Amino acid sequence: MAYYHPKPAPGRHFLQIPGPTNVPDRVLRAIDNPTMDHRSPDFGAMVKALLEKIRLVFRTAGPVVIYPASGTGAWEAALTNTLSPGDRALMCETGWFATLWKEMADRLGIASEFIATDWRRGADVAAIEARLREDKAHAIKAVCVVHNETSTGATSRIDEVRRAIDAARHPALLMVDTISSLASIDYRHDAWGVDVTVAGSQKGLMLPPGLSFNAVSDKALKASETARLPRSFWDWKAMLAANATGYFPYTPSTNLLYGLDAAADMLLEEGLENVFARHDRLAEATRRAVRAWGLEIQCAEPRHFSSSLTAVRVPEGHSANALRATILERFNMSLGNGLGRLNDRVFRIGHLGDLGDLQLMGTLSGVEMGLRAAGVPHQPGGVQAALDYLSGNA
Amino acid sequence: MAYYHPKPAPGRHFLQIPGPTNVPDRVLRAIDNPTMDHRSPDFGAMVKALLEKIRLVFRTAGPVVIYPASGTGAWEAALTNTLSPGDRALMCETGWFATLWKEMADRLGIASEFIATDWRRGADVAAIEARLREDKAHAIKAVCVVHNETSTGATSRIDEVRRAIDAARHPALLMVDTISSLASIDYRHDAWGVDVTVAGSQKGLMLPPGLSFNAVSDKALKASETARLPRSFWDWKAMLAANATGYFPYTPSTNLLYGLDAAADMLLEEGLENVFARHDRLAEATRRAVRAWGLEIQCAEPRHFSSSLTAVRVPEGHSANALRATILERFNMSLGNGLGRLNDRVFRIGHLGDLGDLQLMGTLSGVEMGLRAAGVPHQPGGVQAALDYLSGNA
Amino acid sequence: MAYYHPKPAPGRHFLQIPGPTNVPDRVLRAIDNPTMDHRSPDFGAMVKALLEKIRLVFRTAGPVVIYPASGTGAWEAALTNTLSPGDRALMCETGWFATLWKEMADRLGIASEFIATDWRRGADVAAIEARLREDKAHAIKAVCVVHNETSTGATSRIDEVRRAIDAARHPALLMVDTISSLASIDYRHDAWGVDVTVAGSQKGLMLPPGLSFNAVSDKALKASETARLPRSFWDWKAMLAANATGYFPYTPSTNLLYGLDAAADMLLEEGLENVFARHDRLAEATRRAVRAWGLEIQCAEPRHFSSSLTAVRVPEGHSANALRATILERFNMSLGNGLGRLNDRVFRIGHLGDLGDLQLMGTLSGVEMGLRAAGVPHQPGGVQAALDYLSGNA
Amino acid sequence: MAYYHPKPAPGRHFLQIPGPTNVPDRVLRAIDNPTMDHRSPDFGAMVKALLEKIRLVFRTAGPVVIYPASGTGAWEAALTNTLSPGDRALMCETGWFATLWKEMADRLGIASEFIATDWRRGADVAAIEARLREDKAHAIKAVCVVHNETSTGATSRIDEVRRAIDAARHPALLMVDTISSLASIDYRHDAWGVDVTVAGSQKGLMLPPGLSFNAVSDKALKASETARLPRSFWDWKAMLAANATGYFPYTPSTNLLYGLDAAADMLLEEGLENVFARHDRLAEATRRAVRAWGLEIQCAEPRHFSSSLTAVRVPEGHSANALRATILERFNMSLGNGLGRLNDRVFRIGHLGDLGDLQLMGTLSGVEMGLRAAGVPHQPGGVQAALDYLSGNA
Repeated sequence: MAYYHPKPAPGRHFLQIPGPTNVPDRVLRAIDNPTMDHRSPDFGAMVKALLEKIRLVFRTAGPVVIYPASGTGAWEAALTNTLSPGDRALMCETGWFATLWKEMADRLGIASEFIATDWRRGADVAAIEARLREDKAHAIKAVCVVHNETSTGATSRIDEVRRAIDAARHPALLMVDTISSLASIDYRHDAWGVDVTVAGSQKGLMLPPGLSFNAVSDKALKASETARLPRSFWDWKAMLAANATGYFPYTPSTNLLYGLDAAADMLLEEGLENVFARHDRLAEATRRAVRAWGLEIQCAEPRHFSSSLTAVRVPEGHSANALRATILERFNMSLGNGLGRLNDRVFRIGHLGDLGDLQLMGTLSGVEMGLRAAGVPHQPGGVQAALDYLSGNA
Repeated sequence: MAYYHPKPAPGRHFLQIPGPTNVPDRVLRAIDNPTMDHRSPDFGAMVKALLEKIRLVFRTAGPVVIYPASGTGAWEAALTNTLSPGDRALMCETGWFATLWKEMADRLGIASEFIATDWRRGADVAAIEARLREDKAHAIKAVCVVHNETSTGATSRIDEVRRAIDAARHPALLMVDTISSLASIDYRHDAWGVDVTVAGSQKGLMLPPGLSFNAVSDKALKASETARLPRSFWDWKAMLAANATGYFPYTPSTNLLYGLDAAADMLLEEGLENVFARHDRLAEATRRAVRAWGLEIQCAEPRHFSSSLTAVRVPEGHSANALRATILERFNMSLGNGLGRLNDRVFRIGHLGDLGDLQLMGTLSGVEMGLRAAGVPHQPGGVQAALDYLSGNA
Repeated sequence: MAYYHPKPAPGRHFLQIPGPTNVPDRVLRAIDNPTMDHRSPDFGAMVKALLEKIRLVFRTAGPVVIYPASGTGAWEAALTNTLSPGDRALMCETGWFATLWKEMADRLGIASEFIATDWRRGADVAAIEARLREDKAHAIKAVCVVHNETSTGATSRIDEVRRAIDAARHPALLMVDTISSLASIDYRHDAWGVDVTVAGSQKGLMLPPGLSFNAVSDKALKASETARLPRSFWDWKAMLAANATGYFPYTPSTNLLYGLDAAADMLLEEGLENVFARHDRLAEATRRAVRAWGLEIQCAEPRHFSSSLTAVRVPEGHSANALRATILERFNMSLGNGLGRLNDRVFRIGHLGDLGDLQLMGTLSGVEMGLRAAGVPHQPGGVQAALDYLSGNA
Repeated sequence: MAYYHPKPAPGRHFLQIPGPTNVPDRVLRAIDNPTMDHRSPDFGAMVKALLEKIRLVFRTAGPVVIYPASGTGAWEAALTNTLSPGDRALMCETGWFATLWKEMADRLGIASEFIATDWRRGADVAAIEARLREDKAHAIKAVCVVHNETSTGATSRIDEVRRAIDAARHPALLMVDTISSLASIDYRHDAWGVDVTVAGSQKGLMLPPGLSFNAVSDKALKASETARLPRSFWDWKAMLAANATGYFPYTPSTNLLYGLDAAADMLLEEGLENVFARHDRLAEATRRAVRAWGLEIQCAEPRHFSSSLTAVRVPEGHSANALRATILERFNMSLGNGLGRLNDRVFRIGHLGDLGDLQLMGTLSGVEMGLRAAGVPHQPGGVQAALDYLSGNA
C-alpha cells in the first residue's frame, strides 16, 4: 500500500490474492520508463520482437492479439470476433468467473447453455461430450471453458475437453479463459487445439492489470470472417493487420508493453517448465498447510487442484470475511474473498506469479496467525507442514 | 527511448507528438508503486476521492466512468450505451479521428451521417443546425463532435454546437470527443450541456495510454436504459453501481489509477485556468514560429486554432515524413505524422500536457534545424519569433 | 537482486542481513526523482525542514550533521572533530565493529584503550567507571561505545554508561555509535548526555547506504574548537555554518536526502515508540525460534539482547558460512556472516528497518529450512514458536 | 523539482548548472532497485565487472578507487594518501575550486604554494615549469591542477603540464581534479602520466552526487606507503585489497553503484570519442550564442575554453544573481552562480552530461529570454547563432 497509505503499515504488504499478483521490481522499472511514440520505428521493432516472445508463452505459432484493456475485455473479444447474434455456446459453470463470462455472452446476444457443477471441481468433460454428441445439428458454435477458475481454485483439464470435442466429432470452437493460469500452470494453445485463448496481464504475467490477450487459431480467424456480432475496438482484423509491422490500429498501452517485454524475458529466462514446477510445488505446500489446519479445500477433486491459488472453506458458523479483515489489519496481508455463493464461506490464497518459498511461508504464517487471532477453529501446524514439504523439495 | 534503445541517443528524447505526451516524473513514480488489492478498503477510499477530483477536471457534477482501456474504447462506450441498432447519428468530418469515429459507428450498426469539411477547420455549426432543423421527426439520436481534431489541429466550438442544437429544438444527445483537449483546452461538460464526454489518459491528463473516460449526463443515462446495442465491458450501469462505493465491476487498471490520482493533483494544484492559459500561450508561440518560417498552418480558421497541437503543411513537392525522419535521426525528437489524406503533407507539433517554455523552444529549434537539414524551403527566424513572443508574455 | 541478476531468482529476495535493510518503495521512489540544484531556494527550504525532522529521530534539540558518505566516515568525523593527536580514548571491545572503530582511532593518531569483553555482551559499565575513576588526571578525553554491536547482537546500556561517567565525575566526551540501533532501538541523544552520536542511513533509517550522521552536543562543539586532528571533509564548522540556511559546504548527496526526507516522514508517522516496540517484538519472536531450534544466541546477557539483529551460533563442527550459502542458493535469502573471530561460527538474522511480521516469518522459515537442508543439527519448531509468540502479541 | 515542489512548475525543470547534471532515466531506474547484500557473491561479481568498465572511462590500466562519498572527499583522499605533514604542494589558482582544494591542503597540514591566474584561463604551464626548475631540492612533492575549473569554465592543458614537469626533470606527483571534465572532455590518466585523478559522480558520469574516485598510478601507490598524513576512511590500501575480489572494506553506496554501472554502459555504448565530440559541439554552439548576445565569456583564452560549461560575464552594473533568479522563476531553469570573487558577476551555463541539441537550444532560449526579462543589455540573436551552428554540424 505504498501509493495510497492512509495509515502507517510498516513492512512489505503481502498481496496474496489470486491476482493481481506481486509485480517484480524489474517489471515496475520497465513500466515507468518514458512513454515513446507508438508510431516510431523503434516502437515497431520493439513490438515485433515482443510478439515473438509472447507466442512462446502461449505456446502457439499463431497470432496473439494484445488489447490495451483489462482481462474482461478479452472475454468480450473472444465472443464478438467469432459469434453471431443468437449463436449457441456451451459453457461450464465452474464458478463465479465462468458465470460472469456466461452472463456476458447473454448480454451480447449469445444463447448460452451452462453445464452445472458444484463449484468444487473443474469442467465436467463427460457432460460436455454428451451434450455435443446430442447436438447433431451442430447448433453449438463454441465451447467455452475457464482453465483455472479463480473463484474456486479448480483447474479444468483442457486436454480432455479437446478430446471430448474430437470424440463427439463436433466442429465447435474451443475457447479457453487462462486469465489465472497462463504462465503459472502448464498450458498449450496449439497442442490442445484451442481456438481462442483469453488471458490477462495481472496474474502469471506479473504485470499490473491493463493488458489482455487473445491467442487465435486459424479456425477462429476463419470464423471471424463471418461472425456478425458488432465489434470495433475488439476487432481482430485491424489488430492483426497492424501487428504485422509492429504497430496497433489505435493507441496501445505503451508502458505496460514495456512491462510485458520485461516479464516475458523473466519467464523465458526461468524457463516455462521451471515456472510451472515452481507453482506446483508452492501449491502443494499450501494444500499441506490447509490439511494440517484441519480445514477443507474448496476444490474437491485432486485432479483439478489449482497451482495458482487455493480456496479454503471456513467452518460453518465462522466468517471468511472477518478472518480476512483480521489478517489485513493485524498482518498486513490481502487474501482473496469468496465470490458469489462462496462469499464469506471461503478465503483464497494466491500463490502465483513472482513468488518464492519464503514469501509463501510468510503468507501461510499470516493465515495461521489470522485463524488464531480471529478465533476460527483449526489445528496448529499448517506452517510446519508446508515447511516440512518445501525443505524436502527445494 | 529509455526502455527500448537499440542505439545510443544521448540526451532526453523530445516526445512532441500530440499525444501520448511527456509523462511527468511524479506521475511515473506514482504508477510504479506496487499493485494493490482492488477489493480492499484502502482501494475503495482511494477511488472515491479520485472520482471527486476527476469530476473537477471534466467540470461536471455528474458521474465519470473510467475504463481500463485506451481512448478508442471510450468512443465505443459512448455509442453502445446510448444508441440502438439503426439509430441515426450526425457526425462532423473534422479530420482523421472524426472519420475513425464515424467508421466505428457504422461498424456497430449505427446509421451515421457525415457533415463534410475540408479538414482545415472545426465542425460546421451552421450545417449542424440546418440538418437538425430539417430532421423534424427527430430521427437523429446523437450529434457527435470531436472537440479538438488531433489530425488537423482544429478545435470545434462546442458551446456553439450546443446553441445550434438548442436553436433547432432538437432532442439529440451531444457526444464530444475531448481526447486531445481535456485538461489542455477550456472544456465544460455541464455548462455546455454535453451528454457524453469521451476522453483518454495520454494527452492533457499526462498519463501513459491505457485509461479512458465517459462523463455522462442524466439525459445520457436515461438513454442508456433503452439503448439496445449489445454491450458488456463498456456498460455504464455496472460501472456506476460499483463506483458508488469506490470499486469496479471488473479488474481496473490499478497502477494507472495511481498515476491519474497524481496527475489530477498536479492539474488542480496548477489550477485549470492556468493550465489552459499555459497551453494557449505555447500554441500562439508555435504559430508565430510557423508563420515566420513562411509555412502554412493546416487549420485555416483562426477561431479554431488548437492550443494542443499545430499541424504544419510542407510546401508542395516536399515530404513531411522525410522531414520527420530527419528530425528523429538528427535531433532525437518525435513529431506527429500526417494522417489519412494528410499523410506526408503535414507534420504535427504537439504542445500539450506537461510542457514548459524551454521545452517548446527546444521543440521549435528542432523543427527549424530539421527544415534546414532536410532541405525544406523556409525562412529562418521562427525560433526567434517564438522567443520574442514568449519573453514578452511570461 | 533485481539490478544485477546473473541467473533467474523468482520471487522477492529476502535481504535479512543486519543492514543494509529493505528500502521501502516509498523511499526508493523518492530517491529516483531528478537531482535538483543544491544551491536553489527550494533546496534550502527542503533541507531546513529535513534537519528539523532528523533532530526528532536522534531525540536532540542540537545540530545533526549529515555527511554525503557512508557510516564509517561518521566514525572518523566524531574522532577528528573532537580529539588531538595523542589524545587518549577509552573504547569498549563489544565486537568486530568496536574493534574497527578502535583501529581507526589508532590510525588517526589517537591513543586508544580497549576494555575487553567476550563478544557476547554489551559494554562493561563497571569497568568503564573503574577506569575513569582511576584516571585522576583526566587524560582520557573520550569514552567511545557502540550502542548496538552489529557483529554480535548485543546492545550496550548507554544510560548506564552515562551514569558511570557521571559517577566518576569524569569530563570525558561520550561518543556513541548507533549505526545499527538508531530508529530501531530506543535511543536518546540529549537525555542520555551523549556528546557525539554516530549514525548511518542503511539500517533503521531504511535508506540505501551513502549518508552518515553526527549529532553533536554543545560540549562536543566546544571541544572541536581546540581539537587538532587534521580535518576538512569531516569538519563540523563549515557544515553547521552552511546548514543554518539549509545548504552544505560542498555537494551533498541530493537524491539520498530525498530518501531521508521520505524515511523520516515514515518513522514519524508510525511514531518512534511504535517503531521501537515493533522491533522489540520481532526480536523476541526470533529469539524464541532460535531457542526452539536448540541453538545458542551469541549474546549471552539477556539485558543486552539486541532488537535489531540476532546472531546465532552454529554447533561445533558445523559451518555457518556453508549454511548461509545453502540458504542463499535454495531460498533466495541473504543472512549476515560472522565477522572476525566469529567468522563461520555465527550467522546473523537482521530484523530491523522496514519489516513486518510476515517477512519475519518468511525469514525464520528460511532459516529452519536451511538448517535442515544444510544438515545443521537442530530441533524443528522454531518457526512455530515464533508464530505462537507473534499471534499472541500483535 | 519533482520530489520537493512547494509550488506548481509545469514542464520539465532545466537543470543547467555545471553539475549535478541531468541524470538519465536509465540511471535513475538502476539506482532505485532494491539494495543488495554487499557481501554476497553476486555483489562481488557485479563490482569486478564494474571496475573494469570504470578503468576504460579514466583511460587507465591501473586501479580506480570508488568512495561512497561526494567529490570533495576524493580531493582529501588524493592528498592524505600521498603526502606527509609539512609536505610542499604546488597548486594553480585557476578559480574557486582550485582555491578550495588549496585551502583543504592547508587545513590538512600541507604547505601549499599557489600560482596565481586572473581566473580567466587554465593553469600557467610556464610558471609551473619555472617553479619546478627552481626547486632543485625537490621539496615540492605534488603538483595539483584542476583540469576543468568549474567556477570559470577554463580547461587546463594537462598534457602540457605533464611535459612541463618532465622538462624540469622533477619527481613531484601530478594530481588532477577532473570532477567536471571526466566523461565530458578528453582525458587520459595513463597517457598523460597522471598520478592521482580525482573525480565525482554528478557531472559527466551522469549520476546523482554521492560517489567519488581516485585513479592511482604505481608511483602514487608507492608514495602512499610512506605518506604520513593520518587517514582511515580514505585509505587506498584497504580499498584496493578488498576491491581485488569485488568488495569494499566498509559499506559501499550500493545503489549508486548500480547507477554507475548503467552510466558506464551508456558512455561505452556511445563511445568516449563521441561523448567528447558531442560536448565540444554543444560548447561551441553556446559560445556562439554568448558572442551574438554581445556578452563576454569569462574564459579569455580560447585554447582553454571548456566543453563542460561556459561562464558568462554580465555587463557592469547588472546582477548575475538577479538574472538567474528571473530565469528560475519565469522559465524553470537553474543556472550556475558566480563563485567567490565572481559572485553576481557571472552566470554559468552547464552543457555537460546527458544532453542533446534540443535541450541546449531550450537552455539558450531560456538565457536569451531571461536577459530580456531581467533587462540585461544584450543583442538578440544568440539562440539563432547557436541554431545556425548546430544545424550545420549535426
